Amino acid sequence: MRTLIKKALCSEQAQAPITVKGWVRTRRDSKDFSFLEINDGSCLANIQCIADAGIPGYDDITKMTTGAAIGITGQLVESPGKGQKWEIHATSVELIGEAPADYPLQKKGHTPEFLRSIAHLRPRANLYGATFRMRSRMAQAVHRFFDERDFTYVHTPIITASDCEGAGEMFRVSTLDASKPEAQSYENDFFGKSAYLTVSGQLEGETFATALSNIYTFGPTFRAENSNTTRHASEFWMIEPEMAFCDLEGDMDLAEEFTKYLVDDALQNNEGDLDIFNRFVDKGLIERLQFVSEKPFQRVSYTEAVEILVKSGKKFDYPVEYGVNLQSEHERFLTEEHFQCPTTVYNYPKEVKPFYMRLNDDEKTVTAMDVLVPGIGEIVGGAQREERLDVLKANMAHHQLSEEDYWWYLDLRKYGTCPHAGFGAGFERLLMFVTGMKNIRDVIPFARTPGSCDF
Amino acid sequence: MRTLIKKALCSEQAQAPITVKGWVRTRRDSKDFSFLEINDGSCLANIQCIADAGIPGYDDITKMTTGAAIGITGQLVESPGKGQKWEIHATSVELIGEAPADYPLQKKGHTPEFLRSIAHLRPRANLYGATFRMRSRMAQAVHRFFDERDFTYVHTPIITASDCEGAGEMFRVSTLDASKPEAQSYENDFFGKSAYLTVSGQLEGETFATALSNIYTFGPTFRAENSNTTRHASEFWMIEPEMAFCDLEGDMDLAEEFTKYLVDDALQNNEGDLDIFNRFVDKGLIERLQFVSEKPFQRVSYTEAVEILVKSGKKFDYPVEYGVNLQSEHERFLTEEHFQCPTTVYNYPKEVKPFYMRLNDDEKTVTAMDVLVPGIGEIVGGAQREERLDVLKANMAHHQLSEEDYWWYLDLRKYGTCPHAGFGAGFERLLMFVTGMKNIRDVIPFARTPGSCDF
Repeated sequence: MRTLIKKALCSEQAQAPITVKGWVRTRRDSKDFSFLEINDGSCLANIQCIADAGIPGYDDITKMTTGAAIGITGQLVESPGKGQKWEIHATSVELIGEAPADYPLQKKGHTPEFLRSIAHLRPRANLYGATFRMRSRMAQAVHRFFDERDFTYVHTPIITASDCEGAGEMFRVSTLDASKPEAQSYENDFFGKSAYLTVSGQLEGETFATALSNIYTFGPTFRAENSNTTRHASEFWMIEPEMAFCDLEGDMDLAEEFTKYLVDDALQNNEGDLDIFNRFVDKGLIERLQFVSEKPFQRVSYTEAVEILVKSGKKFDYPVEYGVNLQSEHERFLTEEHFQCPTTVYNYPKEVKPFYMRLNDDEKTVTAMDVLVPGIGEIVGGAQREERLDVLKANMAHHQLSEEDYWWYLDLRKYGTCPHAGFGAGFERLLMFVTGMKNIRDVIPFARTPGSCDF
Repeated sequence: MRTLIKKALCSEQAQAPITVKGWVRTRRDSKDFSFLEINDGSCLANIQCIADAGIPGYDDITKMTTGAAIGITGQLVESPGKGQKWEIHATSVELIGEAPADYPLQKKGHTPEFLRSIAHLRPRANLYGATFRMRSRMAQAVHRFFDERDFTYVHTPIITASDCEGAGEMFRVSTLDASKPEAQSYENDFFGKSAYLTVSGQLEGETFATALSNIYTFGPTFRAENSNTTRHASEFWMIEPEMAFCDLEGDMDLAEEFTKYLVDDALQNNEGDLDIFNRFVDKGLIERLQFVSEKPFQRVSYTEAVEILVKSGKKFDYPVEYGVNLQSEHERFLTEEHFQCPTTVYNYPKEVKPFYMRLNDDEKTVTAMDVLVPGIGEIVGGAQREERLDVLKANMAHHQLSEEDYWWYLDLRKYGTCPHAGFGAGFERLLMFVTGMKNIRDVIPFARTPGSCDF
């Protein structure tokens, strides 16, 4: 029976016999014994093993090089060394799979670019193992957050014939062969029409919220934008809750609670992984997470926020005035310098926001809101939706969207319409915030970006 | 403050005031008062409300027709009626959104075909609300199962350049315009090469298992098969765990435990939804779930299973002999009639299985396994993977797969290879099993099938 190293390292007492299996990180040989550091990816830490010369399997010790898979059976005993509580005194060792001398992760200090080129081996490196364990832990926290609050998880479709905002650049999904004449008409395609990869599950999510009350989606979304930045990927995961009988205020309540919940979870349940980010990636990380965890949120209208920014006298790369979309530098100023707490901005000018947001009585602003945190700015964006059929139709006409394409979306306003609200959170954005990692490619197992779809 | 009907109905005591919001299912008027049944989708049950004529909002009572959104405030009191413990005596009612007379869900007894054509309203029907709550609950159970066992959740890519089995029909993902000459070469496409929608996350999952030990995927997968059956959809969700240092036996242990866990969860935590399936969809449902929950699994090799089937004297539509793939009728005979318990068949002939399964010492069979349950047959399928580089290469050559395309998959066998195993479970198949629903289109929020991609 194999014990995960994570379990062995938090053992309450000495144990014998115990078997761990994993991959060699380092080995040092003396005349009479060898020290081995073994990692199995269940946690950041290795377990140290002492193998005396002559025990069963020791003949293979020179083949137990960095990256080799081995098994160790022995006694789990208190370690006299610093930094670890337990170590294993081996009674036998087993070579399971060798790692030849060209194993690419022999040495430390590889560049992120090189590690992206070996994404299939990258999770074996400490920093990336920690990143993907954190990714998993955050995903579990997302599901737990909504489950505890009686939200129904909905799998909105990935392949879609509609476009959430009438604006996103989309990937086409097709089985047509471009070299054949039938490819000239998408009526001949698999679905009998043009089909795309979804850019958001929101509109479909609204159909479920207006039946089941509180729902959320958590799934992959896509953008065919040809932009090579550290913040954009062609494939990323989004979380999109939607609540019936909920207004902007309830929406902000949930978004702020959600942000704090995930940050708290990262702070409390990281099992050592957070340390590596704070030490090697971003020395201000834990402090920044505590800032969001501990300080109450400040709410400010867009109009007030713009006044604050203008009055600040601060020189921004993008000039700020009423009617512009806030840039990351503006958002960061508000949360980091002005309010010095996490900040929620609400009621944006209707011109900068999509058609489905609810028009306020001033007829100038819509019920949009963005949650801002230090270091990155916007982390969650949402809105109360326009539930009034006539106003929605007018908005759609203004955005040159056809009622025919959105007949089912309009039906939600025709039959038993109700105020409802929701938000979207980019999962990778959240991960970059809780790990400090600066490139979205490094928090996605196999990142897809323009010109890059390997593995 | 709104109370979900689910919470109100399981209240410990009378409450006042309480506000519920939801949609009218039925209304009956007397001279002095009205009875309203309200549903908010938080659970199957409606809450009954009594509204006396003359209370605030009562003037709108005739507009509170089936499907209308309303709010009710009043006292939660013990109900004298049968079948419900609590009801609300309204002190005020509020019309929130009307439902005109053409509301399609006025009457009961619509066909599944009609309801599929209004998939955006379908979750408002009792049976479909129950189905999608069950879908959510099962998804939560999947995540909980693996989280409790220290598995890391991995988001394997949706857009991929590789094909898991060298066999599946795949959707192409493209930004090329077929009417333009550059569409003749996929080197001009977004990723600089042909890209597809994934048919399985297994191979990428293996890269993470050989770094983090125990991992699972749970995400959408795709098949571009032009088959219009009740069991096939073009887009469906799969669960694929993978364990390092695990053999076929450990794999069967996990698959059986997983199956029982989900069935137990459906039996125990369905909050009334299971009843509607058992009454209106499949009267043997609960009995069949208890069968899987209570009876220990039987394990049988493929060779023995074929002998049993041949000796049974039973006439099958598909004749059975060593070397054929088992059909659903064979699988069901084994679990329902012969063993009369859930059954796991292992060690299949290598000819009927994909290239990555581990060759047994007999050189005729591979370490495949299928978990069979009554009613549907195979519900989980998995295998120990071939971890020996030379044997894997020989298998690939036999399947005419190029080593160049799978260089990264081969690397896992070159560097620190280890025995590892996993399985795949179709999430919709599991849902059909726990709900009794007979058409896969009815357990997917917005189903995608050949010729059909609406909403």
